[in-house]
Order: sequence, then structure tokens, then C-alpha cells
Amino acid sequence: MKILCTQENLNQGLNVVSHLAGKNTTLPILDNILIKAEDGIIQLSSTNLEIGISCRIRGKIEEPGKTTVPARLFADYISLLPNEKILIEESEKKIYIKCTDQETTIQGMNAEDYPLLPSLEKKNKIQLNIGTLKDAIKETIFAAAYDETRPEISGVLMKITEKEIRLVATDSYRLAEKIIKVEKKQVGEIETILPTRTLQELIRILGVTAVENLDIYLAENQALFCLDEIEIISRAIEGSYPDYQQIIPKECKTKVVANKEELVKTIKTTSLFSRSGVNDVTLKIFPDKKEMVISAVNAQLGENVSRLKVAIEGGENEIVFNHRYLLDGLQNINSEKVVIEIINNTNPGVIKPEEGEGYLYIIMPIKQ
Amino acid sequence: MKILCTQENLNQGLNVVSHLAGKNTTLPILDNILIKAEDGIIQLSSTNLEIGISCRIRGKIEEPGKTTVPARLFADYISLLPNEKILIEESEKKIYIKCTDQETTIQGMNAEDYPLLPSLEKKNKIQLNIGTLKDAIKETIFAAAYDETRPEISGVLMKITEKEIRLVATDSYRLAEKIIKVEKKQVGEIETILPTRTLQELIRILGVTAVENLDIYLAENQALFCLDEIEIISRAIEGSYPDYQQIIPKECKTKVVANKEELVKTIKTTSLFSRSGVNDVTLKIFPDKKEMVISAVNAQLGENVSRLKVAIEGGENEIVFNHRYLLDGLQNINSEKVVIEIINNTNPGVIKPEEGEGYLYIIMPIKQ
Repeated sequence: MKILCTQENLNQGLNVVSHLAGKNTTLPILDNILIKAEDGIIQLSSTNLEIGISCRIRGKIEEPGKTTVPARLFADYISLLPNEKILIEESEKKIYIKCTDQETTIQGMNAEDYPLLPSLEKKNKIQLNIGTLKDAIKETIFAAAYDETRPEISGVLMKITEKEIRLVATDSYRLAEKIIKVEKKQVGEIETILPTRTLQELIRILGVTAVENLDIYLAENQALFCLDEIEIISRAIEGSYPDYQQIIPKECKTKVVANKEELVKTIKTTSLFSRSGVNDVTLKIFPDKKEMVISAVNAQLGENVSRLKVAIEGGENEIVFNHRYLLDGLQNINSEKVVIEIINNTNPGVIKPEEGEGYLYIIMPIKQ
Repeated sequence: MKILCTQENLNQGLNVVSHLAGKNTTLPILDNILIKAEDGIIQLSSTNLEIGISCRIRGKIEEPGKTTVPARLFADYISLLPNEKILIEESEKKIYIKCTDQETTIQGMNAEDYPLLPSLEKKNKIQLNIGTLKDAIKETIFAAAYDETRPEISGVLMKITEKEIRLVATDSYRLAEKIIKVEKKQVGEIETILPTRTLQELIRILGVTAVENLDIYLAENQALFCLDEIEIISRAIEGSYPDYQQIIPKECKTKVVANKEELVKTIKTTSLFSRSGVNDVTLKIFPDKKEMVISAVNAQLGENVSRLKVAIEGGENEIVFNHRYLLDGLQNINSEKVVIEIINNTNPGVIKPEEGEGYLYIIMPIKQ
């Protein structure tokens, strides 16, 4: 293999693929990236056996072939080179690199031993704006379960219906749901549970490309994301997602509208006095005073009571939330004012933006 | 005790003193800061028994007294309050805090149990510009020994002579020396070895004040730094500093002048191929080609050879350096071009700025 390309093109490609290759002690070749120069196309790819990423880069193939090279070292090295032409030549698993006044040889591994990236048939295309998808992932992913004792909720549900794309995540203590309306009628309904690692990698890559839209192809056990020269393929999580619709409260006894920034700052302040491990803050709502009182008591440290002017509909009420869950949700709402809807301290509370539809965040109260 | 002050003043004072109070399991009161409101002065202070910091803040004393309060919690809480008047009232070791719509009680500890901060007689004042001192500390502190097997080199030597203030640090593999010329004749000669922790804390505090100059008072076993409302007192390290002057090379066989940024980038690139644990990069100097060749070989990873155009005086030469030591020194030189002076691969190499005097960095070569 012998190729010529610019440092800029190679560096951009490596930014996309090299991140996935990690310290893999059982299969060392997964620490490498695969470089393929065949049929007039130079392609970089990497996989961790769950996710596969490939990226085509522009360049000139002088001799076709393929090889693998340690991802971290190669990416670090290329990133430090000046933006000039780079010659890469492989011979007997040694990769020779020349750029201006620098000559380097890196020890590679046999390309034949590199695992094949899975593939997925490109049918039932869903097209989405990159910004819309990135926001929707950020607004839901944090609510997914950390541990994998219940694997089906350790990922994010992506559900396609005729006119909507829904992203849902829950760890059974709180739930986030984002609905994206689509104008073009979608072909067929499908539900896929995507691993959080896949979505994190996707967000990272969406951040380093200048592309505007991406194409998504979903199957029950796989998902494929295509952005111009980049393809990300991932396995999906097996199992069926819980029927979360039933826990969304259908009614509300007290509705509070508060300034988001003020509320976040007050909860941060009060939470300094929460009981550690419980993380409880108490919200008391007084319609006659138009006031929400946020408080916490910690026998060792002390206590805090803060009063916040808010708009209230409905009766007096009281609920205890985990302040971390509360802040997670509030920080993902892009609205000057937020709505909090409460029934009582046994039913989940609902948080949503005052303006704009399509986002819902539900928290289970701490029962006392 | 009952005091009134603004959030801004209290927060600034806490930024200065609260950092020192850490998790101290043997003496829990050291996690607290001391608030004293006596003789018309409100003073915050903290100590870790090695360093003591105090800061006077403006405010109104309604009832004199003193108390201690958990540093982290109090500082975090005050930082989140709006910039309004704060009332602080102590009664039976409970500290009540009121600010706008917030009321808080924090559990304190008995002020009588707080250790006394040491004091030092203010004689033989040395006055220095804060920027000059901050730069001098940053240019030397990184070369001090990490471990304390030889305590005398685990700190930074501060040596006052009639017309100079010298800061010196070494870990026996490299040495950094900064000389500050002073116009005003200093009274008396003195040498004090300052702990790195004290200097780190000093740099941090110099960064959060708007003061221009500070006063330094040195004794053999103590040092005092005064900036307006702030005083930092520290013990000094016992022992005598090694006679480092003897290892500064008096001659030079080859002198190289290189562009600093280019040199740093090249060393970073080549160092990717250093042997781990050895961290070696080889510098070969060819006067006829006006070229410095920087190279590294790692049997597992590969190898790199980089060529750099430089100005050379003297003969062909070769030396092997630890790339970390080399980069540490180069990154602390504020000059477009740097000078490297070499005798051979058994004598230390000297690195200094091409322009500007007063800074010297010496590295022992790796003998092969």
C-alpha cells in the first residue's frame, strides 16, 4: 500500500475513527485502525465489536492495499505534523510515514486479522437535521440507567412512527421523553434500543463534522448512521422497552411556573444541606403567597430554607425530590420558564418547558 | 458574634482562606475557618498547621465575638448567594445566616479550640511586584523534587543578597534558577527553603487579588507574605540547600539557537517514539548543515527522525535528554528563540532564553 494525502484530511478522518479504538487486552488488534486503499477509495475504520465506524478520506492511491496501525500513536503523531502532504507506505507490516522534514516508521499489524465491520441494508431511510438529533440525544441520554442489571433500560429507545421520532430514556427513578415531529411520512413503524455508548460516540462525531443532515437506518438489532463520508454502525440492545406511557401522569393538582435560572440556583444552594445518600430537597407550594419554599435539613451540617416567587395554579402541595434528578432535568430544558406539575408526594412530578412542545421529564418523589 | 457584610466581600475573603482547609481526619477543626470580629476588624483565617492564611474583610460588627464554620460548605453556600447584604449571627456554636429570601443554620465548632496561627516579626522587608514574583515561582517550582526523601530539595530556595533575589529549584536531574535584580539595596543576606505547597497557595492567592506589590519577610525557619488585607505565613524547610553553583557548566563546546515553538512541537512529536520509562530523545547537531536532528527509537512502536533548521556555533555534538525535562524547561522560557549549550553527553546541558537575562535551566543527560 502506498498513499498520499494532506495532513488536514488524514487528521480529520482520524478524529472520527481513532477514538473508538481503546486498550483492548484480549484482542490487541482492536487498538489499531484499519487503513484500506482499494478501488480508488481510501477508508479508515475502527471497531470495538459493538460499534463500527468508517470514514473515507480524499487522497491519491499510488499502490492499493490495506494495513492496520496503532490508533492512539498514529492519531497523536499525525495531529502534530504541519498541514503538508503526507506519504504513507506499508511494507511487511511496517508503516513508513514521510512529511516535510520528518520520517517515521510505525509497527503495524496484519489487516487480514482485523474483524469485519457488520453491515446493514440501507432501506427505510430516516433523514434528520444533525442539530435536532444532537439536542434530542442530550435531552434524554442522561436519564438512562447506568448499570446493566436491566439491559433494556441501559440504552435509549428510538421509536419511529408515521409522523414522529421519539427518544426515551429512564432509570426507573426518572424518565425523559423527546418527540421530534417529521413532516415527511415515515415508512413503517420500528422501535430500537440504542446503547448509550453508541449515542455518545455519535454526538462526538456529529460535533466534528460540518454536515447538516444525516440518514438513519434502523433494524430491530442494528442501527446505521450515515453522514457523507462517515458511517457508524451499532448493535442494538435486545429486549422490549417498558411501557412507559402508563406512568406519565394524566392529571395535576398543582401547577407551578418558575424562572429556570432562579430555580436552578436555589436548588443548588439548598442541596448543600441535603442528607448525603438521600439528596432530598423539599418543595412546598403556597398559592396564596405565590411562593415556593425549598428546604433541606442535615442533622450534622445544618439547614436551609429558600423562598422563590412563582406563578401557581391549583392548591397547596408538597413533594420531596432528589436534587440531582431535578437539576439534571432542569438543565436540559431550553426555556426561560419551566412548568412543574404535581399531584401529591406518591405520584411522579412532571417538569417541562413553558414554551415549546415535545419535551417531558418525570421524577419519582422520595416518599417519607 | 453578629456581623453584617456584603456577599461580594465575604466571598472574596473566602476565596483566599477556604482553599487551605481540607479533609483533616486527625484534627477536624482544621476543616473549618475561623471568623473573628474583634476590635472593629472582621478577619477570616485558616491553617493546615504548616501554612496560615488570614484575610480582613469590610463589614459591620454588631456584636463582637469569634466562631469557626466548615470551610467548604460555608464557601460553597456563600458563593451561590446573590450580591446582597448578609447577616451572620453565632449563638451556641450555631451560625445563623440570612440573605434576602434565604435563611440558613450551619453547625460550627468552638473558636477556642482553633489552633493559633504562628506570627513573625516584620523586619527586613523585601518588596516585590506581584507579577515578577508569580513568574519567578512558575519558572522554578516545577523543578523541585516531588518526594521528600531529601527534604531540602523538595522546596524552592529563596536567597536574598544585596542586589538580587534568587529562586532555585532542583530534583538533582534538572535545575532551574531565576535571578530578580532589585534596585533598592536589601538589608542583610538570608536563605530560606520554602515548601512548594506554600508557593502554590501563594500563586493561587496572587491570582485572586488586585494588589500590585507584596511585602516578604524571611527568617531561617519561617516566611511571611503580606498583601494589603491578606497575610500568608509558612514554616520553612530545615536543612541547608546544596551548593548548586558548582554544577552550572562554565564552558560550552556547541551552542544552538532554535525557534522555541518549532523545537517544542518537534520534541513532542519525536517523544511519541521514546522508550517508556526512559523518555529519551537524542539531539544530534551538525554545524555544516545548520541542522539539529531529533530522534527516538522504540522497539515495540517504531521510530522517528525529525530535522530542524537552527543556528549553530562550535562543533558537531550529540546528547540524550529526557523529553519531559526538556519540555518543562522550554515551556517556561518566555522568548521567541532559545539557546541550548552543550559540552558532551556526560556534562549537563544548559537552556536559556536568547533574549533577557536571569533565567537558567540545566538538565543532566541520559548516559548511554
